[in-house]
Amino acid sequence: MKPKPNAIVAQSGGPTAVINSSACGVIQEAKKSGKIGRVIGAVNGILGVLKEELFNLSAERPETVEQLKQTPAAAFGSCRYKLKSLQDSKADFDRVLDVFKAHDIRYFFYAGGNDSMDTADKVNKLAADASYELTCIGIPKTVDNDLAFTDHCPGYPSVAKYVATCAMEAGRDTEALYTTDTCTILEVMGRDSGWIAAATGLAHRSDEDAPHLVYMPEAAFSFEKLVNDVQEVLKEFGRVFIVAGEGLKDDKGQYITADSGAFAKDSFGHVQLGGVAEMLKAVIEKEVKIKARWNKLGTNQRSAMHFASLTDVKEAYMCGKMAVKYALQGVNGKMVTLVREKGRKYKCTTGLAELRDVANGEKKVPREFINEKGNHITKAMRDYLKPLVQGEAPVKIGEDGLPVFMRFKRKLLEKKLPKYM
Amino acid sequence: MKPKPNAIVAQSGGPTAVINSSACGVIQEAKKSGKIGRVIGAVNGILGVLKEELFNLSAERPETVEQLKQTPAAAFGSCRYKLKSLQDSKADFDRVLDVFKAHDIRYFFYAGGNDSMDTADKVNKLAADASYELTCIGIPKTVDNDLAFTDHCPGYPSVAKYVATCAMEAGRDTEALYTTDTCTILEVMGRDSGWIAAATGLAHRSDEDAPHLVYMPEAAFSFEKLVNDVQEVLKEFGRVFIVAGEGLKDDKGQYITADSGAFAKDSFGHVQLGGVAEMLKAVIEKEVKIKARWNKLGTNQRSAMHFASLTDVKEAYMCGKMAVKYALQGVNGKMVTLVREKGRKYKCTTGLAELRDVANGEKKVPREFINEKGNHITKAMRDYLKPLVQGEAPVKIGEDGLPVFMRFKRKLLEKKLPKYM
Repeated sequence: MKPKPNAIVAQSGGPTAVINSSACGVIQEAKKSGKIGRVIGAVNGILGVLKEELFNLSAERPETVEQLKQTPAAAFGSCRYKLKSLQDSKADFDRVLDVFKAHDIRYFFYAGGNDSMDTADKVNKLAADASYELTCIGIPKTVDNDLAFTDHCPGYPSVAKYVATCAMEAGRDTEALYTTDTCTILEVMGRDSGWIAAATGLAHRSDEDAPHLVYMPEAAFSFEKLVNDVQEVLKEFGRVFIVAGEGLKDDKGQYITADSGAFAKDSFGHVQLGGVAEMLKAVIEKEVKIKARWNKLGTNQRSAMHFASLTDVKEAYMCGKMAVKYALQGVNGKMVTLVREKGRKYKCTTGLAELRDVANGEKKVPREFINEKGNHITKAMRDYLKPLVQGEAPVKIGEDGLPVFMRFKRKLLEKKLPKYM
Repeated sequence: MKPKPNAIVAQSGGPTAVINSSACGVIQEAKKSGKIGRVIGAVNGILGVLKEELFNLSAERPETVEQLKQTPAAAFGSCRYKLKSLQDSKADFDRVLDVFKAHDIRYFFYAGGNDSMDTADKVNKLAADASYELTCIGIPKTVDNDLAFTDHCPGYPSVAKYVATCAMEAGRDTEALYTTDTCTILEVMGRDSGWIAAATGLAHRSDEDAPHLVYMPEAAFSFEKLVNDVQEVLKEFGRVFIVAGEGLKDDKGQYITADSGAFAKDSFGHVQLGGVAEMLKAVIEKEVKIKARWNKLGTNQRSAMHFASLTDVKEAYMCGKMAVKYALQGVNGKMVTLVREKGRKYKCTTGLAELRDVANGEKKVPREFINEKGNHITKAMRDYLKPLVQGEAPVKIGEDGLPVFMRFKRKLLEKKLPKYM
């Protein structure tokens, strides 16, 4: 009897609270299907494929796999290694195929953002050109929520729930101490899109609730506008709570700040941002003459498993599960999408989009989700967001009172090819 | 029949997740006792007393009062207004007494840190000098955990649980992306004591777990040591997660950084710190030549009700309740303390300390809680910490998927005195 073909799962880019839930869905569905041999994990995404650093997920204990749903970040290891065009990265692409062949891998499940979908698409094309039978399915993952063709991205609902809660809580702190600490700025992630900043707007249930001002990269920012906005809020409430996306831009589309340190660009060539909150603080203290302080949640926002959205965990799992189902149905070269069904009650199912379309697409916060002044969200955004942040993901707590996360043993498979990198 | 004397409750200094639980304890116990008339809230601590901005807590709905236990920050409003010596602030102290007399206030419950205990002590002395019958009881409150005479301070266990969880979660993020994002620095609060930084050490269950390095103000810091420490951890794990208290000092006791902005000092004259993580990042990138990123939780750490310690909520409530019980027993001029009973099983009861002793005391992280190298905690610290972070405080969630906090209506009592400030 011919052995069943193997599948590989890999995780790429910035981690989220639920990328492991998607992996869990892939592993459990592959096992359930009975049609896939080994499910193999690649250590650190495509890097692990290139280095032939692979481990047998089927050998991990079912309880460990199940606990992926309660573990943030990327349990396989992630990477920011980008394969460029087929010409420029020819050797890399050939190597990926060689490794797949050596381990009889016929299914490639890649969880990531645009860049990862681009990689999966190119691997798929190369395999087709080489007449190597391979099925490539992308699984959406990004806290930035900027992937096109999907209603939202797994990972985003959790960061949304967390940052909105953080805005609410720190907002109460500012409210309590406004006589001295009058202004607080919360800096959140979002290089080119304001989805995360926008999510904090949900905490603003009434006019007096934080955040009073929400600045997103999609709305041109100016310090003059900031000072005016702050003065207006101060007049009414005596305090002001501001949320700023890290990638705020002026009316010419230029970042209002850029980290000029030695590592200012990441490996994908993206500018690494930082310092928006500090700039806002300096301007507000100088121009409005009130004390301002700032919080920068950084990677804590995308790893906050302890208050993740249960809806997100379930949908991320569904994406992983459906990736396997679609693959076994003969679908290839597509990314699983989340589809919000029409109707009053929120219902989310899955669909499919071409990997190459997702790779080239980008979804900004639409104009109708941003208020006219460009300093807050609209009801449309709230309606979009509310169903996503429903439910709290369960958290396993250890005897020391802190969450317990799993970690794979990652016993590496024997290498079959010469060292590559 | 003579009307029952009234009590005033006020909150001071930086808010915490549980200062409202203490207030809840005062209000509910005062009501239960049947010996106190109105329980009056002062808006923004002693400022509200000076301005005669007082509201009748007894008129608030019991459900609202109960929900104080699930609401972070200071529901009465807090302040950083410091009354200095009786001579320098004579007018203020006289005014406090005048307001107390005008509203027949015979009990003064003040929740705060050293400075607030100092204020309560002086008000108490002035009342005695003026033969005005007044009972002053302090309720400990500070995330910094630096009050002497109490095993720990309400507020600290919740920030401890939260920052340790944040270190654990962001640590997993660094672990996943170490091939590019090799170093993460988490900056936490703690101007002069390292209790909060130390708490993150609890997340370090095994050598590979974050945080690998914990720097506290109690251990002299140097950049040479940092670079060595980082290189050692890198050699073993290929990544490094660092926690830095905001008030790191060199071997001469000087802050390694100080914000030189326009509002660099708060109203108590404390230097406002910031930028430790940024400095560490810059040095690590330059000297170790790895990419470093940093998170600064800021006021989000002290307001994180969504993952507060249930033990903390209960003990803070107990402090409020006992403050009333002690007052009615005739105790005066003392602060309620938390006493850890001897024995293997954790049990916490209350005791009492002189207000003036607490005002002058300060509790640093003891040497035996810090490892020899000065870059992590010891088992003694873990043993101290573990019982405090047990249990998760319940969180009421609204239909929008976010926490629901209460807010007092704060209907102000009619003013009986001329305007003062």
